[in-house]
Amino acid sequence: MAAAAPPGTSRERIVLAGAELFRRQGYAATGVKQIVAEAQAPFGSLYHHFPGGKEQLADEVLRTGGAFFLALYRSIIDQAPDLSTGVRAFFAGAAETLEVTDFQDACPIATVAGEVASSNDTLRRATADVFESWSAALAGDLRAAGAQPADARAAALAVLAQLEGAFLLSRSLRSTDPMHAAAGAAVAGLTALLDPPTLNGSTP
Amino acid sequence: MAAAAPPGTSRERIVLAGAELFRRQGYAATGVKQIVAEAQAPFGSLYHHFPGGKEQLADEVLRTGGAFFLALYRSIIDQAPDLSTGVRAFFAGAAETLEVTDFQDACPIATVAGEVASSNDTLRRATADVFESWSAALAGDLRAAGAQPADARAAALAVLAQLEGAFLLSRSLRSTDPMHAAAGAAVAGLTALLDPPTLNGSTP
Repeated sequence: MAAAAPPGTSRERIVLAGAELFRRQGYAATGVKQIVAEAQAPFGSLYHHFPGGKEQLADEVLRTGGAFFLALYRSIIDQAPDLSTGVRAFFAGAAETLEVTDFQDACPIATVAGEVASSNDTLRRATADVFESWSAALAGDLRAAGAQPADARAAALAVLAQLEGAFLLSRSLRSTDPMHAAAGAAVAGLTALLDPPTLNGSTP
Repeated sequence: MAAAAPPGTSRERIVLAGAELFRRQGYAATGVKQIVAEAQAPFGSLYHHFPGGKEQLADEVLRTGGAFFLALYRSIIDQAPDLSTGVRAFFAGAAETLEVTDFQDACPIATVAGEVASSNDTLRRATADVFESWSAALAGDLRAAGAQPADARAAALAVLAQLEGAFLLSRSLRSTDPMHAAAGAAVAGLTALLDPPTLNGSTP
């Protein structure tokens, strides 16, 4: 099958290969030679499509991956009967993805975000824009579910931190325990915010 | 001052320089030349002290950094009147450290943990051992405070995930908002576990 034409344009294959390699092994460890080899693209095509080289490719990969993950979130939340159930389903999907990919496929931007935060401001801004877009989406959903704006922003950041930390711990420990623990804590936090327990309320 | 002897042995300076560089810019981006330059140590001294080179150094750096962070946790918790207050103080200290170091100085192992999880099993194990040691310490404190063992383990993983995710988001966004939001969520979770609200309890 080596002679079969690979699917997609060379540009699309380069973006996809970059996304997989950056996510799994990081930005610094990934060379342009590895990207074009993985993409089955001619070496020069990377610089043809991305004159700024690896950094420009990474910027696009981070933003594209961020948009994809946001669309995934939107799809899962919109199918759920309520926000807490949707967030629980999102965490469950993350745990399942970790397991079926042997703990390789996690957040599309986290590994690079850690590497570039203090060393590459162009890429740090890309990661910040993506994290802000996710946080804003969840905060908007929380406001729609009745949370006050300040509470919604803090709760969204807390849930996103839960998710990102759980990705890291689950990959390191090769266990979904952290993701399941984080899911429980995140959902409990949202329930307390959106549906607080009533003191003096009725008990069974 | 260029002629002044730098403090510590060359081995100690190499470990310290490696710790700072790995934490801030990652494992792959850090070369042995940069480490020895930062350490003001002769190039050969790195391989003299660490025959396994950068990987052996990183293994020691991760484990040493993990032990230091654990001692810091122990010190803060032991000075606090109760566990929730101690955890709150730990998160507050993390936020302060992020601010005074211009968001450079965060978790001693997180950046490398993300890079190596799927690409270097020796270093992945080092990060897993460290995360497990932290999780076990917090779980032990939770059991001592009255939590059931299974609850204690899940809560410890959830709080650790909160912390790690908040480090990543705070560095990316260059804001302590995620760390403060995570602190609030983590403490609320611990309070619910250790001191659950009483339905039908007394209200003011």
